[in-house]
Amino acid sequence: MTYTPATQDQLLAIRVNAGIEELARTEKFAAAEPDMVEAIVEGVGQFAAGEFAPLNRVGDLEGAKLENGVVRLPEGYAEAYEAYVEQGWNAIASPAEFGGQGLPFTLACNVLENLGTANMAFNLLPMLSVGAIEALEHHGSEDLQQKYLPKLVSGEWSGTMNLTEPQAGSDVGALRATAMPIGDGEHAGKYRIKGQKIYITWGEHELAKNIIHLVLARLPEAPEGSRGISLFVVPKYHVNSDGSLGPRNDVRCVSLEHKLGINASPTCVMSYGDNDECIGELVGAPNRGLAAMFTMMNNARINVGNQGVQIGERATQQALGYARDRVQSARAGSPDKSPVAIVEHPDVRRMLLRMKALTEGARALLYYTAGQVDRGVLGDEAARARGEVLTPLIKAWGTDIGTEVASLGIQVHGGMGFVEETGAAQHWRDSRIAPIYEGTNGIQAADLVTRKLGLDGGQALVSLTADIARDCADEPALAALAKDCAAVAAWMSDEASLDDRLAGSVPFTTMLAVAVAGWQLVRQLRAVEAGGAPSLAVTKPASVRFFLDRIVPEAAGLRTSAMAGAEALYAIDTEALLG
Amino acid sequence: MTYTPATQDQLLAIRVNAGIEELARTEKFAAAEPDMVEAIVEGVGQFAAGEFAPLNRVGDLEGAKLENGVVRLPEGYAEAYEAYVEQGWNAIASPAEFGGQGLPFTLACNVLENLGTANMAFNLLPMLSVGAIEALEHHGSEDLQQKYLPKLVSGEWSGTMNLTEPQAGSDVGALRATAMPIGDGEHAGKYRIKGQKIYITWGEHELAKNIIHLVLARLPEAPEGSRGISLFVVPKYHVNSDGSLGPRNDVRCVSLEHKLGINASPTCVMSYGDNDECIGELVGAPNRGLAAMFTMMNNARINVGNQGVQIGERATQQALGYARDRVQSARAGSPDKSPVAIVEHPDVRRMLLRMKALTEGARALLYYTAGQVDRGVLGDEAARARGEVLTPLIKAWGTDIGTEVASLGIQVHGGMGFVEETGAAQHWRDSRIAPIYEGTNGIQAADLVTRKLGLDGGQALVSLTADIARDCADEPALAALAKDCAAVAAWMSDEASLDDRLAGSVPFTTMLAVAVAGWQLVRQLRAVEAGGAPSLAVTKPASVRFFLDRIVPEAAGLRTSAMAGAEALYAIDTEALLG
Repeated sequence: MTYTPATQDQLLAIRVNAGIEELARTEKFAAAEPDMVEAIVEGVGQFAAGEFAPLNRVGDLEGAKLENGVVRLPEGYAEAYEAYVEQGWNAIASPAEFGGQGLPFTLACNVLENLGTANMAFNLLPMLSVGAIEALEHHGSEDLQQKYLPKLVSGEWSGTMNLTEPQAGSDVGALRATAMPIGDGEHAGKYRIKGQKIYITWGEHELAKNIIHLVLARLPEAPEGSRGISLFVVPKYHVNSDGSLGPRNDVRCVSLEHKLGINASPTCVMSYGDNDECIGELVGAPNRGLAAMFTMMNNARINVGNQGVQIGERATQQALGYARDRVQSARAGSPDKSPVAIVEHPDVRRMLLRMKALTEGARALLYYTAGQVDRGVLGDEAARARGEVLTPLIKAWGTDIGTEVASLGIQVHGGMGFVEETGAAQHWRDSRIAPIYEGTNGIQAADLVTRKLGLDGGQALVSLTADIARDCADEPALAALAKDCAAVAAWMSDEASLDDRLAGSVPFTTMLAVAVAGWQLVRQLRAVEAGGAPSLAVTKPASVRFFLDRIVPEAAGLRTSAMAGAEALYAIDTEALLG
Repeated sequence: MTYTPATQDQLLAIRVNAGIEELARTEKFAAAEPDMVEAIVEGVGQFAAGEFAPLNRVGDLEGAKLENGVVRLPEGYAEAYEAYVEQGWNAIASPAEFGGQGLPFTLACNVLENLGTANMAFNLLPMLSVGAIEALEHHGSEDLQQKYLPKLVSGEWSGTMNLTEPQAGSDVGALRATAMPIGDGEHAGKYRIKGQKIYITWGEHELAKNIIHLVLARLPEAPEGSRGISLFVVPKYHVNSDGSLGPRNDVRCVSLEHKLGINASPTCVMSYGDNDECIGELVGAPNRGLAAMFTMMNNARINVGNQGVQIGERATQQALGYARDRVQSARAGSPDKSPVAIVEHPDVRRMLLRMKALTEGARALLYYTAGQVDRGVLGDEAARARGEVLTPLIKAWGTDIGTEVASLGIQVHGGMGFVEETGAAQHWRDSRIAPIYEGTNGIQAADLVTRKLGLDGGQALVSLTADIARDCADEPALAALAKDCAAVAAWMSDEASLDDRLAGSVPFTTMLAVAVAGWQLVRQLRAVEAGGAPSLAVTKPASVRFFLDRIVPEAAGLRTSAMAGAEALYAIDTEALLG
C-alpha cells in the first residue's frame, strides 16, 4: 500500500463541514445515513489505494501514448477501470432513474478525493465523465438522456468537455468550431460538427467502450462571442436505437500534449469532421451552450479544488514516511549526539505540520462547499448562494495549497526530492495543472470580485464573513481576518473601480479562503473536543492550532495587497513594461 | 535571441548595491573601473545570450547521458564551453598570479548571473569550478596551487565538490569515505581514496580536459563526526610534473540521477578507488577539511542564491513575451469589446510586475551581498560580518523567489504553461533544485538564527535592521518591517529556546530578506530618481513600488509565525504525527 486513505479525517469533514446527517434527514438524500456513508468512504478508500495507487508511478513514467490514432495506457489501467465500473463507484451521485445512487454531491466528492489521492491523472477520467453526465442531466432532451446517461452513469462509457481552441482559452467566446444542421426527418436535431479542440482530457482512449464528447460550436449565423455558442453531444461511436454501438463517428485524436505532469491522462488535440461526416446532436437550446457548460463547470471547479486536497494528502503522507525513515544529525542542542529521524528536527516538523494543516484546511473547505451545494439542490437558496461564493475559493486556494504542499514535500526529501525515483517530484509536477485548468485561478478570483461579490445584493459574501467573525469570537486572529475580509469586500463594493477589484482579486481570494477554511477547522476542533472523533483527538488540535496561529496571520498580511488598487499596475505603459 | 541580458539593471545593482566605484578606488580592485565593468557586463551578457542560451532547451530535452563510463552532452555544449574558456570568462575573479584577472567577486557574480540566465544547468560547470579554485587558493600548498590552479582558472580543467554520501547529506559529518596514507618519498602527502559520493554536479564529462575533484574523506583513526574530515584533491587524470596529463586515476562515474530538472547538468554517483588505486593529495591540515570546504561553500551559497535571480529573470522575460503576443478577451469593463493582449488584463499585469519586483529585489540583495564580501576581502570586518548575515538570506529567499517567479511564469502562460514545448515549465523544474542544494533553505535559516544571530555579539544583525529602519524612515511599511525583524531577533536572542528559534527560522529568514531587498531597491530608486540610470527611469519606480507596497506588507504577516515557538510543533508526539 503506497498510502493510507484519510478515512477518519474525511468522515469528520463530511459530518461536521458538509453536515451529512442533516442532509440524510431529507427525503432526497435519505440513503446517506451513517452506515452507508462509512461504507462508501471506507470502501472507495480501500479500492483507490488497492487498485488506482499502484498505477500512479508507471503512469507517470510511461504516460499515455498515441499509436495510429489509438491512445494506449500502461498495463493495468484497463483492468483497474473495469473494476471501478463493476464496483459501481461511478454512479454515486447520479440520478437513480439512470442507474445512479442519487446520493449527495458530498459523497461524489469523497469518491473523487480517494481516487485522485491514489492517482490524480487516472481520476480525471471519471471526473470528466461527471461533467458530461451533469450537462445531459440538466440540459439534454429525454431522448438524449435515455440514449447516453445509463452507460455514462455506470462508467461503461466516458465523457469529455470540449471548449478550448488554440485562439479560445479563457475567452471561450472566441471559439470557431461550427455545427451545420443536416435536415429534417431522421436527421432532425442533428448537425455536422467541424473544428479542432485542444486540451481535451481523456479525449481518446480504449478504457471505456464509447466516449461521449460534449462539444461547444457555433450554428450558422449565430451571434458573435459567447452568446452564439451551442452545445452538442458527439459520440465516438454512433449509438443505434437499440443501444448497441454503430459505426465510428468522424472524430479523432490528432496528437497528445507533452506535459509537465499528469502523464497518464491523455491531453488530446481532437479533430471533428475531417471528412465532413462528424454528426452531433444539440443539447439544450441553440446559442445557450455556454449556460449549459457552466452548469457542469461549477461542480467541475469544486472537483478541481478537490485535486489540491488530493495531492496535498498524498504528498504529506509521502513526506511523513520519508521523515520517519531518514536519519540525519542529532537534535540541535541535545546532549544526545546520536542522529535522529529528521521528523524530530524543528523545521522539518514545521514543514510537515504545515503540509498537514493546509491539506486538512482545504479538505474542510471542500466538504463545507459540497454540503452547501447539496443544500442548494434541496432548494435552500442561501446555501446555494454560499456554495457559489465558496466555489472559486476551493478551486483557487485548494489548488494553490496543493502545489505548495507538494513543494514542501520535495523540500522535506532534500536532495532525494529532486530525484524522480522518490515520486515526490511527480506530485509537484502533477499538482501544477490544477491552478490552470477549469478557469485559471486568476479567473476564479475575477469571478469572486465581480459576480460573487454582488450576489444577492452583496449579502452572500457579507453573511459569510459575518458568520465567521461571530462564530469565532474566541479565536481573535481568525475573527480579525474575517473582519479584514469584510473590510476588503466593503471597499471593493463601495469604492473600488473594476480594475481595482481585479488588481486585488487574487490576494483577496486567498484571504477569504483561509478565513473560511480556518472557520471550518475550528468547527472540526469543537467536534473533536466534544468526543466526536476519538482517533483524531491528538492530531486534530495540532493541525488546527498550526493553521490558526501561523497560516491565518500570514493571510492577514495580504490585506494591503488586496486593497492596493490598479493604478500602480498601469503606472507604466505596456511598452515600458515589456522593455 | 531567446532572451535579452538584463544589462542595465545589473549595472545599476553593481553600482548602487555593490558600490563598485568605491571598490575600484582600492588598490586591489583598481582594475574594476567603470569602462571595464561595463565591458564585462555587456560582453558576458552577449556571450551568454548568443552561446549558452540556445543550448538550454536541447539540454533539457536530451540531457546528459552516461555511455560506457563517458558522460555525453548534447551537440553544441563542447563548442560553447570552448568559446567560454577562450574568451577568458572563467578567470574574472581568480588571482592574477594564476592567470586570473583579480577582479571583485561582484563581477564574478555577474558572469554567473548572465551564464545561468542563459542556461542554468550548463552554468553549474563553471560555478562548481569556482569552488575548487577557492579551496585550493585558500588551503592548498604552493605545489598544489601551481599544479592545478592555472588550468582551473583558465577553465581548461573543471572542478567538483564531493561531500554527500547516501547516509551523509545535511549531516556531512556522517560521511565514511576513507583516505589511507601511501608512504614517504615521492608518495609523501599522497593517499589512497576510497568511497562513493552522490549528487556530484558535473562529476564526469568531456568538456574540460581534466576534472579536479575536491573530496572529503576520513584519515585512519580520525575523530568521529565533522571534526575527523579531511579534504583531498583527486584529479580525473594524474598530472605529470611538467604539467602534462598522465594516466587516468581510479575514479569513475557509476550512474547519473534522473532528475526533475537541470537535465543538462550531469548529477553523478562517483566511485573512488574501486581498484584501490585512487590517489589523492591532502589539501590543508588533516581533519580540517570541513573548514576548508566552508570557505568555498560560503560563496557557493551566494552563487546558488544567484540562480534564483537567473531563473527569475529568464521566466519573467518569457512571460512578458507571451503576455505581449497572446490576445484573449477584451479589457473587463471597457467599452471597446475587442480582445487585447493579456498583458493589459489587471491580474496578468499584477503577476508580471510581481515577477519583475521579486527578481529585481533578489538581484539588489545579491549584489549588495557580493559587495559586502568584496569589502570583507579588503579587510573591512563589519562588511565581512554583514556579508555573513546576508549569505543565508540571498541563498534561501533568492532561491524561493526563483521558484515562485517561475511558477507565476507558468500561470501567465495558462494551459500553454503546462505544455513542455513552451519552455515555461522547464524554468520551474530547473528552479526547484536551488532551495535544496548547497545547504537546504532550512539549513540556511538555521544558520541565520544560530551562528549569524550571535555574530559580533549580536551586533551584526542588530546593525543591519537599524540601518534599514534609519535609511528608510520615509517608507513606513519597510521601516516597520525592519523593526519587526529587530523585534523577532531580540526575542530570539533574549527569550527563545534553540528549538523556538529553529521553529521560527524560515519565516524570519523571509522577513529579513524582504526587508534588506526592499532597502536595496529603495537605494536603487533614489539613484534612478537622481538621474543615475535614464533607461530605467520609468520601469524602476514601478517595480520598486510594487515591492514596497505589496511584498513588504506580506512579509510583515510572517512575524507571528516567526515568534510562534516550538511548543506547538511538539504538542503531539512523533508517533501521533506519523499517524
